[in-house]
Amino acid sequence: MNLFDYVDSKTQEHLSDLYEFLRIPSISAQSQHKPDIERAAQWVAERLRRVGLDSVEILPTKMHPLVYGESLHAPGKPTILFYGHYDVQPADPLDLWTSPPFEPTLRDGQLFGRGTADDKGQVHIHIRALDALRQVTGKLPINLKVLIEGEEEVGSENLWDFVQANKARLKADALIVSDTSMLARGVPSITYGLRGLNYYQIELTGPAQDVHSGVFGGAIPNPLQVLTELFAKLHDKNFRVAIPGFYDRVATLSRAERKALNALPWKEKEFRKTVGAPGLAGEKGFTIVERLWCRPTLELNGIWGGYIGEGAKTVIPSKAYAKFSTRLVPLQEPKEIARLVERQIRRLLPKTVHCKFQTLSMGKPWVAAYTHPYFQVARDALEKGFKKRAVFIREGGSIPFVTQMHDTFKVPCILLGFGLPDENAHAPDEHIALENYFGGIKAVASFYEGLGNLK
Amino acid sequence: MNLFDYVDSKTQEHLSDLYEFLRIPSISAQSQHKPDIERAAQWVAERLRRVGLDSVEILPTKMHPLVYGESLHAPGKPTILFYGHYDVQPADPLDLWTSPPFEPTLRDGQLFGRGTADDKGQVHIHIRALDALRQVTGKLPINLKVLIEGEEEVGSENLWDFVQANKARLKADALIVSDTSMLARGVPSITYGLRGLNYYQIELTGPAQDVHSGVFGGAIPNPLQVLTELFAKLHDKNFRVAIPGFYDRVATLSRAERKALNALPWKEKEFRKTVGAPGLAGEKGFTIVERLWCRPTLELNGIWGGYIGEGAKTVIPSKAYAKFSTRLVPLQEPKEIARLVERQIRRLLPKTVHCKFQTLSMGKPWVAAYTHPYFQVARDALEKGFKKRAVFIREGGSIPFVTQMHDTFKVPCILLGFGLPDENAHAPDEHIALENYFGGIKAVASFYEGLGNLK
Repeated sequence: MNLFDYVDSKTQEHLSDLYEFLRIPSISAQSQHKPDIERAAQWVAERLRRVGLDSVEILPTKMHPLVYGESLHAPGKPTILFYGHYDVQPADPLDLWTSPPFEPTLRDGQLFGRGTADDKGQVHIHIRALDALRQVTGKLPINLKVLIEGEEEVGSENLWDFVQANKARLKADALIVSDTSMLARGVPSITYGLRGLNYYQIELTGPAQDVHSGVFGGAIPNPLQVLTELFAKLHDKNFRVAIPGFYDRVATLSRAERKALNALPWKEKEFRKTVGAPGLAGEKGFTIVERLWCRPTLELNGIWGGYIGEGAKTVIPSKAYAKFSTRLVPLQEPKEIARLVERQIRRLLPKTVHCKFQTLSMGKPWVAAYTHPYFQVARDALEKGFKKRAVFIREGGSIPFVTQMHDTFKVPCILLGFGLPDENAHAPDEHIALENYFGGIKAVASFYEGLGNLK
Repeated sequence: MNLFDYVDSKTQEHLSDLYEFLRIPSISAQSQHKPDIERAAQWVAERLRRVGLDSVEILPTKMHPLVYGESLHAPGKPTILFYGHYDVQPADPLDLWTSPPFEPTLRDGQLFGRGTADDKGQVHIHIRALDALRQVTGKLPINLKVLIEGEEEVGSENLWDFVQANKARLKADALIVSDTSMLARGVPSITYGLRGLNYYQIELTGPAQDVHSGVFGGAIPNPLQVLTELFAKLHDKNFRVAIPGFYDRVATLSRAERKALNALPWKEKEFRKTVGAPGLAGEKGFTIVERLWCRPTLELNGIWGGYIGEGAKTVIPSKAYAKFSTRLVPLQEPKEIARLVERQIRRLLPKTVHCKFQTLSMGKPWVAAYTHPYFQVARDALEKGFKKRAVFIREGGSIPFVTQMHDTFKVPCILLGFGLPDENAHAPDEHIALENYFGGIKAVASFYEGLGNLK
């Protein structure tokens, strides 16, 4: 039996095993889910053992454990480090899910559930590809190191300490990650650029306690109002981030790259449909693809303060809060950007409020030349697995680990993404297309096989 | 025994009865407290019966019941309508209360608990004053109608329908309300002006569902950002409300009134201490007292949207929300202001978001000349009860009923307030000073007695 026939013959087994994984609510941001995080780590370790990896370990960190395993029995063949994450985003707002977030549900060829696309489904593609290679050929065609973490959705801080302390152990000829999306349905894609991410939170304090808006209104600073005025000043009328120095290090796109990116089979109509807003917005002077992949942003991710319950409460609150983030592009420096953001916010705020500013996480942007032969093997494998032409793309999201690994080991990072942009990663009704999940298993198996055949 | 000696002799009885009332969490804005609202109405009705009112009734409305009772056995004497409310504001944020909001607690001469100042404590002052008159003199010196409602904190809508349908029954020579504050500790006060209140809520929708801020950020409308830009445009740099037409009908203060208000024993230092903010704010060209009592405002009361939990979530939400209100002054018209506010908001919003605009409630401002003899009786009664000079003041809060009654019956409205501005009405740790609670009982008893003695 060849690899693809084997994969096709195990459809039910792939899915029932994936369902088990998806049912564990391993939300890394919420401390009450710590036991689920532990269960998910154990589940991954058990699966790595089953597909034949040696010395599989669950490695505790200051927060959530890492899972590591390896198979080094292919002398002379490439050594590949595969990275993924078993943690997921919070599931709220729960009332907007059509089926429960942790009860995987099939509808119209899509599998719905938190983590289906980001990233449990994609990690599982690799587990099943390794299983197929083992069942069909009896061995792995390459040397493989697998590192699956539990803090990707909260900034991957402890992962990095681990890598620094284990450079020799993790050394490989390439890094493979499946945590991104394809350009569109039917367009298998290799991502060669990611934005970086800094995440911030501020707390503004006006009056020392909540006060009556009738008795005090008109003469005291309202922190909610101050918050709105602050964020209104952080963009200019062309949707550029209005923070001095923010764009100073942003690399200009080459004419060739700009042309290549804008020639991709990317459909604005589909994008508009996915967004579903009355209109689009964004930085003047750039196409939508450029705005999404190659331009930095500052976005509010959450705001709150005052009375947010049913009905009316005539209060001026003591405090107002915002969570927000900057997406960074080459060659912006996260630490410098965090400094510029905080400086400008403190400069803009009136003296009538106190401000507590926190940088919750920082991550660098990344972009790679895709000239290494492994990229060609990856492209061929995608085209075999999906029976479609594959393309090279960038992405607007962030995987700090990729940047860090690239900076540390100076090896190719190959991002084989099997999600789709409209699959609601980080939102209610997250899902993955079954055709991409199954195509992904075939492509990844082909990719490892192809790397083993490289002369 | 004279009236004041009687009041002094019943200190424990006053308080233990008040505690019972305060322990009922009669929050009108939250539907889960409906049974508590019913209990509070029954409690009030029972007390009105005990002090000798006839035909006490609990009158159902579309939302929360009214309590009504009367005593009309003083022919030739004035007929007074006393109005108060038994409902209270929501108690959240609960974690900021030093003692539980519905467990009355004495500390340093202050009684803490939701409703102590606004308005259960002040309603109770009248109940105890009536009790004292009855116990000491055997009868009421005037004709009295008492109307206590349960929707003051949510806009008093059904109260007004009741008044319209019962004009003959409610007819009186004056309206007495105790739901305001004294100017300061030791300064008994009669309020002759109130601001009106319109309360609004908006819901902005950008993308059709929450989306990943990396995958979509930079090219789509973020409703949180749009919300901040909207509210930043609703004030100008002089803290004036930037809504065309908003100030068109605002009456100019007379030189005499301006002088009188600014000569009151009002202490800015105390005010700053109460607020506890790093600085004050407000409309240029007006003193703090004028800003608080005589100038209209637009204040955010609550904002929310996106991820507001622990840690980070890289989301651009579909929706952003704000609750906000305008305080109105003579001669602004609530309906016109609501129209102007909605028109300006729709004008300012970009076409990239949908907006749902709601006016949750509307209420007119009120101001009275205090030349009627009843005002002098009130002043004398306050000076007797408190042994201090009494003053005439305005207030920044809103009691829609006062305006409506004044417009309908064209009779004097006399606002005898026994709260203090720093007693956290509508905020955690609401309280009332015991000296004002006891002084209030004496003043109200004196007032009713004085009205009975008027020739």
